[in-house]
Amino acid sequence: MLERYALSPMKELWTLEAQYQRWLAVELAALEALEELGQVPPGTAQLVRARARLDVAKILAAEREVGHDLIAFLWVLEEEVGPEGRWLHFGLTSSDVKDTALALLLREALEILAAKARELGEVLVLRAREHKNTVMLGRTHGQWAELTTFGLKFLLWYDELRRVEERLVRAKEAVSVGKLSGAVGTYGFFPPEAEERALRRLGLAPCPVASQVISRDRYAEVFFALASAASLVEKIALEIRLLSRAEVGEVAEGRPEGSSAMPHKRNPILSERLCGLARLVRAALGPALENNALWHERDMSHSSVERVLFPQSFVLVDYMLSRAAKLLRELVVFPERMRRNVEEARGFPFSEGLLLALVRAGMGRKEAHGLVAELSRRAAAEGRPLAAVAQEEARVRALVPDLAAIFCPERALAHVEAIYRRVLGG
Amino acid sequence: MLERYALSPMKELWTLEAQYQRWLAVELAALEALEELGQVPPGTAQLVRARARLDVAKILAAEREVGHDLIAFLWVLEEEVGPEGRWLHFGLTSSDVKDTALALLLREALEILAAKARELGEVLVLRAREHKNTVMLGRTHGQWAELTTFGLKFLLWYDELRRVEERLVRAKEAVSVGKLSGAVGTYGFFPPEAEERALRRLGLAPCPVASQVISRDRYAEVFFALASAASLVEKIALEIRLLSRAEVGEVAEGRPEGSSAMPHKRNPILSERLCGLARLVRAALGPALENNALWHERDMSHSSVERVLFPQSFVLVDYMLSRAAKLLRELVVFPERMRRNVEEARGFPFSEGLLLALVRAGMGRKEAHGLVAELSRRAAAEGRPLAAVAQEEARVRALVPDLAAIFCPERALAHVEAIYRRVLGG
Amino acid sequence: MLERYALSPMKELWTLEAQYQRWLAVELAALEALEELGQVPPGTAQLVRARARLDVAKILAAEREVGHDLIAFLWVLEEEVGPEGRWLHFGLTSSDVKDTALALLLREALEILAAKARELGEVLVLRAREHKNTVMLGRTHGQWAELTTFGLKFLLWYDELRRVEERLVRAKEAVSVGKLSGAVGTYGFFPPEAEERALRRLGLAPCPVASQVISRDRYAEVFFALASAASLVEKIALEIRLLSRAEVGEVAEGRPEGSSAMPHKRNPILSERLCGLARLVRAALGPALENNALWHERDMSHSSVERVLFPQSFVLVDYMLSRAAKLLRELVVFPERMRRNVEEARGFPFSEGLLLALVRAGMGRKEAHGLVAELSRRAAAEGRPLAAVAQEEARVRALVPDLAAIFCPERALAHVEAIYRRVLGG
Amino acid sequence: MLERYALSPMKELWTLEAQYQRWLAVELAALEALEELGQVPPGTAQLVRARARLDVAKILAAEREVGHDLIAFLWVLEEEVGPEGRWLHFGLTSSDVKDTALALLLREALEILAAKARELGEVLVLRAREHKNTVMLGRTHGQWAELTTFGLKFLLWYDELRRVEERLVRAKEAVSVGKLSGAVGTYGFFPPEAEERALRRLGLAPCPVASQVISRDRYAEVFFALASAASLVEKIALEIRLLSRAEVGEVAEGRPEGSSAMPHKRNPILSERLCGLARLVRAALGPALENNALWHERDMSHSSVERVLFPQSFVLVDYMLSRAAKLLRELVVFPERMRRNVEEARGFPFSEGLLLALVRAGMGRKEAHGLVAELSRRAAAEGRPLAAVAQEEARVRALVPDLAAIFCPERALAHVEAIYRRVLGG
Repeated sequence: MLERYALSPMKELWTLEAQYQRWLAVELAALEALEELGQVPPGTAQLVRARARLDVAKILAAEREVGHDLIAFLWVLEEEVGPEGRWLHFGLTSSDVKDTALALLLREALEILAAKARELGEVLVLRAREHKNTVMLGRTHGQWAELTTFGLKFLLWYDELRRVEERLVRAKEAVSVGKLSGAVGTYGFFPPEAEERALRRLGLAPCPVASQVISRDRYAEVFFALASAASLVEKIALEIRLLSRAEVGEVAEGRPEGSSAMPHKRNPILSERLCGLARLVRAALGPALENNALWHERDMSHSSVERVLFPQSFVLVDYMLSRAAKLLRELVVFPERMRRNVEEARGFPFSEGLLLALVRAGMGRKEAHGLVAELSRRAAAEGRPLAAVAQEEARVRALVPDLAAIFCPERALAHVEAIYRRVLGG
Repeated sequence: MLERYALSPMKELWTLEAQYQRWLAVELAALEALEELGQVPPGTAQLVRARARLDVAKILAAEREVGHDLIAFLWVLEEEVGPEGRWLHFGLTSSDVKDTALALLLREALEILAAKARELGEVLVLRAREHKNTVMLGRTHGQWAELTTFGLKFLLWYDELRRVEERLVRAKEAVSVGKLSGAVGTYGFFPPEAEERALRRLGLAPCPVASQVISRDRYAEVFFALASAASLVEKIALEIRLLSRAEVGEVAEGRPEGSSAMPHKRNPILSERLCGLARLVRAALGPALENNALWHERDMSHSSVERVLFPQSFVLVDYMLSRAAKLLRELVVFPERMRRNVEEARGFPFSEGLLLALVRAGMGRKEAHGLVAELSRRAAAEGRPLAAVAQEEARVRALVPDLAAIFCPERALAHVEAIYRRVLGG
Repeated sequence: MLERYALSPMKELWTLEAQYQRWLAVELAALEALEELGQVPPGTAQLVRARARLDVAKILAAEREVGHDLIAFLWVLEEEVGPEGRWLHFGLTSSDVKDTALALLLREALEILAAKARELGEVLVLRAREHKNTVMLGRTHGQWAELTTFGLKFLLWYDELRRVEERLVRAKEAVSVGKLSGAVGTYGFFPPEAEERALRRLGLAPCPVASQVISRDRYAEVFFALASAASLVEKIALEIRLLSRAEVGEVAEGRPEGSSAMPHKRNPILSERLCGLARLVRAALGPALENNALWHERDMSHSSVERVLFPQSFVLVDYMLSRAAKLLRELVVFPERMRRNVEEARGFPFSEGLLLALVRAGMGRKEAHGLVAELSRRAAAEGRPLAAVAQEEARVRALVPDLAAIFCPERALAHVEAIYRRVLGG
Repeated sequence: MLERYALSPMKELWTLEAQYQRWLAVELAALEALEELGQVPPGTAQLVRARARLDVAKILAAEREVGHDLIAFLWVLEEEVGPEGRWLHFGLTSSDVKDTALALLLREALEILAAKARELGEVLVLRAREHKNTVMLGRTHGQWAELTTFGLKFLLWYDELRRVEERLVRAKEAVSVGKLSGAVGTYGFFPPEAEERALRRLGLAPCPVASQVISRDRYAEVFFALASAASLVEKIALEIRLLSRAEVGEVAEGRPEGSSAMPHKRNPILSERLCGLARLVRAALGPALENNALWHERDMSHSSVERVLFPQSFVLVDYMLSRAAKLLRELVVFPERMRRNVEEARGFPFSEGLLLALVRAGMGRKEAHGLVAELSRRAAAEGRPLAAVAQEEARVRALVPDLAAIFCPERALAHVEAIYRRVLGG
C-alpha cells in the first residue's frame, strides 16, 4: 500500500538489511572505543570488523527462535566472528544500539527531505519570478477580493518553505544524538568516555542524560517537522485544485487523469492525492506524542508505533515534496483566463479604494463604508461595473472627481516589487 | 469548565477587554505610522489616542447589529473620537489588526509560560541535586532493571525541559510578526514603510509576505511547543503515579485526595489530572495543522478553531507547568522504602555484571547469557538471592572468583557524577 | 470563548447548579431504594428530600476546604438536613453518583441534539423536494461531470443525517446506564437490588458490571456520534462554500458577512465557521478513546478530559446543527445561474453517452474511449460544443446517427424520481 | 513494517490480486444484470466470465501507461475477452466498481474480526469463571481500595467486548452497500433496477442515494469500531502490565521477552506492544472523518488515505485481537501472591465498612469519615492493621462492638455471584 509512494533513495533506508548494517556500525564503533580505552584486547575490533557478515535470512531465523531481534542479530554475528565475537555488545543494552542506529537513519532521511525541500524551493522561486506581474484576482472567502499577482502565491509558499526547512534542520539536530549508557542510562558497564569516542566515530553527539532510551520528545519534533512539510504541500495542492476548477480555469495540472466513464475528463488528481496524504502525515503526531511518557526507565509501547510511523511518514513526505515540485514545474498557467476573470469582477476589487477616497475627502468611515456597500449591491444586482454605478452617485462625484485613478490595477500592485525584495533580497 | 484551571495572570490575557485594548494599540500604531509618512493630517494620532475609550458593552451591542466584531469596534471608536476617527483603520483590513494583535497576545502568553517553565526547571534542579545519590531500582517494562538514583529522573526531565523551553522561544519568534498589508497582502493602501514603522512601535517584525492573514503554520508551531510542554508534564506525572502506587510506595503526593467512600484513601489525583490534561493539549495539534491550508488569500475556517483552542491550550499548559512545579516541590520521598525495594530485588539488578564477567573471562556471550538467565530463573523460583545461586554454579566459581565485586551498588553508580556534570555543568 | 456558540437549552445543562441537582436526584433515588429494602429508617428519604437545599456558593466554599467536590456537596447537604443526612451516600462512592448523574445529563443533551437533527432533517427534505428538478452540473474533482439536480444534494445529506440520528440514538442507549455498585463495583455496601430500584426511579438501566466507574468506551461512542454529526454539517457547509464561490455563483448564504476593508464583500462566513468547528469536534475523539484504558479499578485521568470536552463538544454540535438548519433554510439559490453554468460546459457532461453509444454500436471500449477523449480535447482547445466537434467525425456519424438523443438532459435525469422514492418513500 | 503484524487470512484480503478478483466480480455482476434486462446481447456475460483472466503484471504495466488503475484493468480484460469485452463496465464509473468491491472486502474483513472477537470472548468467559472467587485487592488511583476478585476483571472486559462486537456488526451493516449509479449517482446509463439485480448477486444492498461515491461517513464508522476494539485490547494489556509489575507480581505473561543486557529479565512486551498498537489504530479516526467532506459529487482526497489506513488498521486490529486472546489464554496467575498482597493492605480495604457501621450506629457521616480517616493515618504511620488501631478508639468500641464482622472478605464479595449472573446469565 505504501509501495505506491516509496521513492528511491528514501525507501532503501528502511529495509531490514540497511537496519542491520546500521546496528553493526554502532556495535563496531562501541567496540573500537572500548579497545582504545584498553577494555578489550587489542586487535579485537579489526578482527570483528573483518569477519562480520550480515545474513538477513539467518538473523530472521534466529529471531523466530529467541524472540528478540537484537539478541538474534548478536547470535548470528558471534557465530560468524568466532570467540572474539563475545566482545560485541559489551556493556551495551539493545536500545543503545537501536536508538543510536535510529539517529543515523533519521539523519540520513532528514537530509534526503532537506534536498527535496530545496528542490521544491527552486521551483517556487522560479515560478514566483516568472509570474511576478501576472495579474489575477485575489480571493478571500471564495469571493472576489482585491487584485494580486500569481507570483505572490509562490512567494508566500517559498517563505513558508524556509520555515519548514528550518524545522527539518532543527529536527535533525534534535535527533542527531546517540546513547551508549546501558540498561538504565547509568553507564554501568560502558563508561561515558567510551560513549563519546564511539559516537564521535559515528558523527553523533552524546545524549546528555538518558534512561534506557533516548527521550521520545526528540522524535515528536521530527514528526512535527514532517507534518509541517506535509501541511505546506497540502496548502499548495489545495490552491491548485481551487484554481483549476472548471469555472475558474486559471491553471491546470500538467498531467491530469482521465475517467473510466467520462472521456472528456482531465482531473487534477495529483493535487487531490497530496491533500489526502497530508491527513496521514498529520495523524502521526498524536501517537508520536503519546510515545513520550514511558514507564520508569522505559517501556516498549513506543516501539511498534515507531516501526510503522517512521517509514510511513518519511516515505510520504518524501513523495509529497517530490510531487509538489513536479506539480508546480509542470503546472500549466492561463494568464489570459486570469485577465478575463478580473474583468468579470467588474471593478469590485477596487471598492476599498473608493471607500478610502471618500474618507480622505472627509466622509466618516461608517458612512463611506455604508455608501460603497450600497453601490456594490446595486452594481451586483444590475450586473454593471462598480465604477459606472459609483459615477451616478452625487456624493461620490462630489468627493472623488477622478474615479479612474481608483479603478487602477497598476496602483493596486505598486508594492509587489517591494515584497519580492523582502523575501528574495536584491 | 476551563475556569477550574485558569490562573492569573494568564487568564486575564484572554478577556474581551484585553483583546479590544490590543486592537486599539495596533490601530493607533498604524495611524501614527501613516501620520509620520504624511498620509494623515498632523495631530490626528494624538487626538485619537486621547479620545479613544473602549466600552465593551457598546461594542458587543454594535456587533449584534452589524454582525462583524471589528467593524463594530470601529463604529464605536469612531463615534467616541469624532470626525478624526475616520482615519482609524485607514488602508487596513480586519486581519491586519487581528493577526497583529494576536502576535502581541501570543508573545505575552508565551512569556508567561517561559517563566513557568523556568520555575519548574528550578524545582527540577533542586530535587535532582537533593537526590543525586538516593539509590533506587531502575525499572524497565515495569520489571526490576539495574540500579539508578532518584535524582537522575529529575535530571532527565530537566534536560527535556530545556528542549521544551527552546521550543517555546522558537515559537515566540515564529509568531512575533505583525502584518499590515491589507486585504490580500499587497499593501494596496498601506505601504510597507508604514507597516515597518507601526510594527516597530509594537516591537514586532513584519511578516515578509502574507495573504490576507499570516500563515497559520506559525501558530501550529506554537501548538507543538505547548504539546511538548504538556507531554513533559505528563511524563513527570506518570512517573509519580507509578512510584506512588501502594506496592511501590517510594513517593507520595504532598496533598493527596481522599475518597467519599473509603476514608483511608490518599490518592495521587493531581498527577492523574495532569496526565488527562496532556491529552487535551495534544489533541489541539490536529486542528492547528488543518488550519494552515486556507482557500486562496484566506478563508475563515481557522478562526473558530483558534478562538477555542488558543485560550484552552494556553490556560491548560500554564496550569500544568504550575502544578507540576508544585507537585515536585511538595513531593514526599521515601528513601528507606527505595532501599527496601532494592533489597527485594535480591541481586537481579547485577545480572549484567555477572554476564560480562563471564564474557571477560572467556565464555561466549551466547553461552554466558544463557547461563545467567538459567541462574536467574532458579533464583526467582526459589526466592533466593542471585549471588547465592550463582555461587553454587561451578562455571561461575571457575571464571568469576570475586562475586562480591559484581553485586556492588557503588560500582553500578560510579558515573552518576559525570552525568550531572554533563547536564548541569561544573 | 465557547459562550459565543452556546445556545439554550443546551447550555443550561452544563451549569454547576444543574450538576448539583442531578447529584441530589441520584442520592435521593439511592436513599429511597435503601429505605424500601429496610436498610434505612422509614421516613428518612422523605425528610431528606424535604430539607435538602443546594447552595452553590456554600458547596464551592466547602470544596476549597476539603479539596473534593462530592465530599463538599455531602457536607453541605448533611448540614442542611440534620442528623438524618448521615444516611445520604450510604454505601455509595463518588463515581456512583457522578457517573449515574452523567447518564442523566447525557441522555438529556443527546435528546436536544436529536431534536436539532430532526429539525435539520425537515429543512433537508423540504429543500430536496423544492429542488428535485433544478438541473445543475454535477462536478467531480472540481471539474464538470454529468448533470444532476440540486435537490439530490439535499437528499444525499438527508440520507446521511438518518445515519447520524441513528448513531445519536445508539449513543444514548449506550450511556443510559447507571451504576451504584460502590468503590470497586462489587456492591460491597449497596446491594444490586437497591441499585435496580434506584435506577428504575431515574429511568436508567443498571450497568451489568462496572469497576469504580462505568467503562469509558460508552462515552467514546457518544463522541463518535457527535463527530459524525459535525462531519455531516462540515460536508454541507463545504458544498455551500464551493457553490457560492464568485465564479460558480449558484447559491449565496442568506446573511453573508461584510469586510472592514472591502465594502462590496458578501462572505459565506457561517459555512466557513461550521467547517472550522468540525475540526474541534473531531479532535475530541482521540482523548475520548485514550480515556478508556484506566488503571485497575479506575484512575482519574479521564475526569479533566471529560470536564472540558463534554460541554465543548455538545455545545458545538448543538450550535452546528442549529446553524446548518438556518443556513439551508435561508440559502438563496440561483437556478438561472445553474442553467448558465450548464451551458458553459458545452456538452461535456454527455461524453459518456457518446462513448456508450459507440460501444453499443460495436466499437471496442478502449477505442471508443480514446476517440471521445480526442474529440473532447479538440472541443476544449477550440472552445466549441462537443456535439459539434463529434458531428464532424466520420466514425461518430457512421455509428451514432442521432447525436441529439445523446446530448439530452432529460434522458440523463430520468431516474431522479426513483432515487427520491428510495430515500423518501412514496 | 506492517508485515510483522499481518496474519492469515486477513492479510490475503489486501493483495492486488484479491482486489482485481473483487473488481471482476462486480463487473460480471453488473454485466449479468444488464443482460437480464435485455440491455446487452444474450450470452455476453457467460462468455466474458469464461474468458476473463486476471494477469496482475499485465494490468500493472497497463497502469503505468494509462495512469489509471481501473482503466488499465479494463484494457487488459477487454483484450483477453475479445469484442464482447466492450460490454464490460457498460454505464459504470470507476467508483461504482471500487466502492462496491470495497463493500465485499470490508464485509469479509469485518467477519474475520468478528470471529477473532468471539475467540477472545471465549477466553474471557473461561478465565472469568476460573477466577470468579480468586480474591485480590481492588485498586483505585493505584492505591489499595476494597477487595474484588480476579474474575471480575475478565467479566468487565467481556461485557465491553460485547459492545465492541455490536459495533463491528453495525459497521458491517453500514458498509455492506454497493453503488452502481454512475458518474454522479444519477443512474445516467445504468438503471436502478440493474443495480438492484447486480448487488443482489453480490449479497449487498443498494446505497439509497450516492454521489460518484458512497458517503465516507460509513467508513468512519468502521474505523470507530476498529478503534473501539483496539481500545479494549489496550485496556486489557494495560492491566496485565500493571499486575505483572515486579512489585505487584500477581500475573506474568506466558512468554515474556528477555533483554540483551540483563539476562534475568522477563518482560511483558506483548502487553506493551498491544498498548502501542492501539495508538496507531486510534489515530486513523481523524483522517477517516476528514475523508467525509468531499467536493461536490466527489474529489479523490480520500483515496490515498483509505489505501493506507484500511489495510493498516484491519491488520493491526486482527493482530491485536489474536494476541490478546493468546495473552490471556497463556497468562500465568499467582493467587498466592494476590492473597499476600491483600494481607499487606492491613485491613484498609474495609475502611468503608467501618465508616458505615459508625453512621448506622448514629454518628454523623462527616464525623465518621473524619474519624476513620484519622485512624487510617495512624495505622499507616505505625504500620499496624487498621482493625487493631480502631479497636483502641473509644468511639469505635462504643458504637461498633463487632469489628470482626466488618473486616471480613466474604461479606465484601457476597454479590459477586449476582454480577456473574447479570453478565453471563444462568
